[in-house]
Amino acid sequence: MCQLLGMNCNVPTDICFSFEGFHRRGGSTDHHADGWGIAFFEGPGCRVFLDAKSAVQSPVADLVRHYPIRSMNVIAHIRKATRGVVALENTHPFVRELWGRYWIFAHNGILENFAPQISGHYQPVGTTDSELAFCYLLEVLRTQFPDRQPVLDQLFPLLREVTGKLARHGLFNYLLSNGEYLVAYCADHLSYILRHAPFTQAHLIDQDVTVDFSALTTPDDKVAVIATEPLTDNEIWTPMQPGELQVFQHGAPVPMS
Amino acid sequence: MCQLLGMNCNVPTDICFSFEGFHRRGGSTDHHADGWGIAFFEGPGCRVFLDAKSAVQSPVADLVRHYPIRSMNVIAHIRKATRGVVALENTHPFVRELWGRYWIFAHNGILENFAPQISGHYQPVGTTDSELAFCYLLEVLRTQFPDRQPVLDQLFPLLREVTGKLARHGLFNYLLSNGEYLVAYCADHLSYILRHAPFTQAHLIDQDVTVDFSALTTPDDKVAVIATEPLTDNEIWTPMQPGELQVFQHGAPVPMS
Repeated sequence: MCQLLGMNCNVPTDICFSFEGFHRRGGSTDHHADGWGIAFFEGPGCRVFLDAKSAVQSPVADLVRHYPIRSMNVIAHIRKATRGVVALENTHPFVRELWGRYWIFAHNGILENFAPQISGHYQPVGTTDSELAFCYLLEVLRTQFPDRQPVLDQLFPLLREVTGKLARHGLFNYLLSNGEYLVAYCADHLSYILRHAPFTQAHLIDQDVTVDFSALTTPDDKVAVIATEPLTDNEIWTPMQPGELQVFQHGAPVPMS
Repeated sequence: MCQLLGMNCNVPTDICFSFEGFHRRGGSTDHHADGWGIAFFEGPGCRVFLDAKSAVQSPVADLVRHYPIRSMNVIAHIRKATRGVVALENTHPFVRELWGRYWIFAHNGILENFAPQISGHYQPVGTTDSELAFCYLLEVLRTQFPDRQPVLDQLFPLLREVTGKLARHGLFNYLLSNGEYLVAYCADHLSYILRHAPFTQAHLIDQDVTVDFSALTTPDDKVAVIATEPLTDNEIWTPMQPGELQVFQHGAPVPMS
């Protein structure tokens, strides 16, 4: 399978600490060595760094580790190929534009017997079930709301409905963001931590690295980090429940009815 | 204005030498310091490196200079902002998917009184005339050929028609690629060089750097490099004519009727 990492904040924040641990799972502390990628929203703009090499061997990952890009919505993925060869076009996260916004998607899992009829509005470039699911999901959103982005209260029930349909095909943990908020769906493995004042120290599981967030933050900062498996061993991560769909905005979960 | 750099080859080739000279114009030998970007096709996959910083100050440009990514179609852009603030969402090249392929676009120039009616199939995320022109262009292609990508002989007349319409609004030098071929349109400044056997030495204009291509190539290699201004001072570059639309494939111009 793969592993997912997401971050949603109320102020632009760099993900260097979390990525430091996460990227080690891409071929060092774990076997997700079939490419990796990370997408940063900066305002409405978005940049995606991809490499078909393993994260621990990738010069692009070295850049991301040492160049603190500040973002309020980040999605990263390290791949263990199940469907689709190891190649750039099959490397997550994927990006498409909808309603004049970039949408970013990454998936952990596998879908079986999944061959939806899509109109061609969005077509996969690669051969993964994941990119096909993303194209299908965006087509559903666009078909239901052809003109403009609805408010989250309108969008959420549709997201839940289409997620349910997709999840029936197999394992469908995913992260999705439009730069305003980050959507996380847990099929079997996804946990999150909410960091806010008073900030403390955090210690990575995958490397002996500690950061003192109190020295790097202001009292108003709020940061949500979502990952397939917890990244730190001295903080309490909240495991999401199978079937749980959660939206994070401004560094906190959004209560949805 | 801005500057454009494109490369089209018959074998995956790195662009490090050309980019070495080109990136210096992003704030050192020239004043195009309002962000930069470069897109590499690798098979059908594509990765775009963007930075709103000047190319000479950008850690991402350092990566691109030192990490030889081999590609058959590359488009790069350094920006001198005319329309749209300096921000990631206004940084070229832009990417969208059409017919299950990524399309990459970068523009040098400015369009006046350009407010086309677009259906919303592709919508700009940023505020540049360039991204709007790209969205319009793709919409025209998609509307004419809704189901699948036509052969180049069918596509070219339409490209010429829509380019003509856009060019009437101002200066519209552009580069466009779908990973199969690279389209270059010259409004006022665009030149190219075709490198093939016997390969010789080339010397950059913007830095005292020489490369001996004969040591880096095989006799079958063909490389076309297209740039707003020539990048080397010891080779003969072909200036494109105002109004000239040229397709490059396998490292050479494609004769089009």
